[in-house]
Amino acid sequence: MGDLIKLLRDGLPDEAVLTDPDVIRAYAKDMASFCDAGTAAAVVLPRTVEQVQHVMRTATALRVPVVPQGARTGLSGAANATDGCVVLSLVKMDRVIEINPVDRIAVVEPGVVNAELSRAVAAQGLYYPPDPSSWEQCTIGGNIGTASGGLCCVKYGVTAEYVLGLDVVLADGRLLTTGRRTAKGVAGYDLTRLFVGSEGSLGIVVRAVLALKPAPPEHLALAAEFPSVAAACDAVCEIMARGHAPSLLELMDRTSVQAVNAMGHMGLPESTAALLLAAFDTPDPAADLAAVAELCTAAGATEVVPADSAAESDLLLQARRMTLPALESLKSATMIDDVCVPRSRLAAMLDGTAAIADKHGLLIGVCAHAGDGNTHPVVCFDPDDADEARRARESFDEIMALGLELGGTITGEHGVGVLKKDWLARELGPVALELQRSLKQVFDPLGILNPGKLF
Amino acid sequence: MGDLIKLLRDGLPDEAVLTDPDVIRAYAKDMASFCDAGTAAAVVLPRTVEQVQHVMRTATALRVPVVPQGARTGLSGAANATDGCVVLSLVKMDRVIEINPVDRIAVVEPGVVNAELSRAVAAQGLYYPPDPSSWEQCTIGGNIGTASGGLCCVKYGVTAEYVLGLDVVLADGRLLTTGRRTAKGVAGYDLTRLFVGSEGSLGIVVRAVLALKPAPPEHLALAAEFPSVAAACDAVCEIMARGHAPSLLELMDRTSVQAVNAMGHMGLPESTAALLLAAFDTPDPAADLAAVAELCTAAGATEVVPADSAAESDLLLQARRMTLPALESLKSATMIDDVCVPRSRLAAMLDGTAAIADKHGLLIGVCAHAGDGNTHPVVCFDPDDADEARRARESFDEIMALGLELGGTITGEHGVGVLKKDWLARELGPVALELQRSLKQVFDPLGILNPGKLF
Repeated sequence: MGDLIKLLRDGLPDEAVLTDPDVIRAYAKDMASFCDAGTAAAVVLPRTVEQVQHVMRTATALRVPVVPQGARTGLSGAANATDGCVVLSLVKMDRVIEINPVDRIAVVEPGVVNAELSRAVAAQGLYYPPDPSSWEQCTIGGNIGTASGGLCCVKYGVTAEYVLGLDVVLADGRLLTTGRRTAKGVAGYDLTRLFVGSEGSLGIVVRAVLALKPAPPEHLALAAEFPSVAAACDAVCEIMARGHAPSLLELMDRTSVQAVNAMGHMGLPESTAALLLAAFDTPDPAADLAAVAELCTAAGATEVVPADSAAESDLLLQARRMTLPALESLKSATMIDDVCVPRSRLAAMLDGTAAIADKHGLLIGVCAHAGDGNTHPVVCFDPDDADEARRARESFDEIMALGLELGGTITGEHGVGVLKKDWLARELGPVALELQRSLKQVFDPLGILNPGKLF
Repeated sequence: MGDLIKLLRDGLPDEAVLTDPDVIRAYAKDMASFCDAGTAAAVVLPRTVEQVQHVMRTATALRVPVVPQGARTGLSGAANATDGCVVLSLVKMDRVIEINPVDRIAVVEPGVVNAELSRAVAAQGLYYPPDPSSWEQCTIGGNIGTASGGLCCVKYGVTAEYVLGLDVVLADGRLLTTGRRTAKGVAGYDLTRLFVGSEGSLGIVVRAVLALKPAPPEHLALAAEFPSVAAACDAVCEIMARGHAPSLLELMDRTSVQAVNAMGHMGLPESTAALLLAAFDTPDPAADLAAVAELCTAAGATEVVPADSAAESDLLLQARRMTLPALESLKSATMIDDVCVPRSRLAAMLDGTAAIADKHGLLIGVCAHAGDGNTHPVVCFDPDDADEARRARESFDEIMALGLELGGTITGEHGVGVLKKDWLARELGPVALELQRSLKQVFDPLGILNPGKLF
């Protein structure tokens, strides 16, 4: 280990190689509950591509595992340290290198914070849509590693759809450039997309070319109250089947609404079984909202309240964005699930989740990117109560099993990490799993890149 | 070879295994010029997944190469037979299995013709955007294999963005399922995307889950005449930088305009140096066209003619769609290039192409998906004139070199096939090329899947 630190310092400034036990502890974990983490040998904070190459060459020479990290806001343990590893934090590589309105691209380093990029491109009339809940903290590198989603996805898609090209430092320190700066391109296999969502297991992203959209008009939102979750899901299906293009379409169950009110005094209607939030950023959002309001009423909504300004709409969004922390504050621990089903099966998914909560006598609050069929059931429990903790884990697993049964996936946007690796094998099946392992072997023959994650 | 035919017939109906020399000749080539093709041992036309698995198991057992084919409308020779191969034509697997308006997906077999799918989903108020020029003939399987584009891409993106999941028969006959039916999903590496554009070199796509969009409003188009190609490109850059979202933005140079008039009596203005076509399928296309007309005028357009109906707009599109065949009719042979550059470099690309034509004393007509920076220079020549043929090949290569110099790619949407495989290595560089070869090795260790293509 003395060797490791010495060799790392040969190519990095002293202040970029940290071995203080408190620092090492501080960089041990992301935000996932119940995912073990080991003790790193060092935390390195490179500022250049060459420094990252030096780290990987050193790691390869000494066969030391490397765990890449962004802001550690992930929810699956993918950024958790392993014993004796080098934690490779990319947060100091945080330059926005280029914003080009004609080509509608941005070129960034991996440590750029999502919200900072969003603001920088907005200043030029552009829009970088992906907006995970943690957007004020999370980094673009982390977003690429976990293939993040957000509220915008129902209209604008996920991070993967905005990554045009990458510079990647490979396990042995070589630099790979993938993809392109152009709007289109089909030269060879799509290596770029292979890295998106690979959780740092194939290489270290050190630069990204991102696609941008023109800034949309200001959005306008409405809130609709439903007497049942199923009725709200009917409304979601109708809205999407009729060809509407909401910029968000979110569902909060009663537990979520109450939790948000308790935390933020938001004044959401607590009597509702399900609150649906819809927004449009179209040229005439009021007209689109009126059409959606009618569909909500037809599906059984008891009240539909349109916001009358962008500011009021922002308040509704803020309530929605507060849901996860609000649910987390209900009990001393939570497990956040991330099951995505075809939206036609959303009602079955949510009713099934409620049945699982009943069966186990647990509090499970649900918020959902309903337009995408992507649900976040949050299992609330007391980890000191061994029986409740066991039931929490069981219900978490049963929710994933239900998702697969309904033709869905175990993870819509949070990734696999260590939290769901047993389930990944179950979703993929043996043929796909074998191929995935072989791909990993191509990029990382020594198995030093974020070992123990995904598989 | 007797063995091969006998073994193939063990798992396929007699009429699905063809060995007639005329049939074999008929299936030898796609539509690319100057790409060699060999003589297949047999053409097979399976109707089921099991039959495809039987073909691949047989090919693996006998180490016989397999060349998958759709409608053979490709432009890079990717579907060309090799000596002794089995041509595996998927055109009889042509069922649309499901269209689901709530989930906005279609599930199809690979032999479904693009235009037939488009019409089937349109009947349910939905839209499958990818629209290569050959859309009335080409198949979805071929579109996936070559990652096809089209006129719609400037607003709606390419085929890759519409492929959610695949069933693939692997080289050894095993069946792999990738991806999902859901709007989002990040479970493991993105194998789906790896197959898109892989030109049948990794496996045989036997089923695809495709994303659909709501049907847009009727489009409206305009035509703008420019005194120079550079002025037209300035207009393109302005239109895109101002945040407009045209549903197509196409450029035809003078040679293209004249060729289309000669072929179709379309009455396009022949005095123009560059004709720009723009269309919008927005809620108020006339307003969007008016704004674009102003930008065209400011960039130097001498005349701007808006269509006043969807039917008139369709006529303009028809003229554009006629460009490739019209240019092909000018001389006895053509080579069609497919270079895509960042749209900010489009003027440099087109001026450079004109200079290459001058230098070699050749007729090179250009049409371009201008909004995407994707140009199709068509080199027209007489193959019986050895010197002209040599100059044609040289200019074709110089056009690709220029594209790379300008930060572009050698292929925006036509693929690599045999036509550009030397150039693929040049674009990718040694690190990416080595990784791509290793990926091929994972999926096809015996090298029987479409050998000699891509690399």
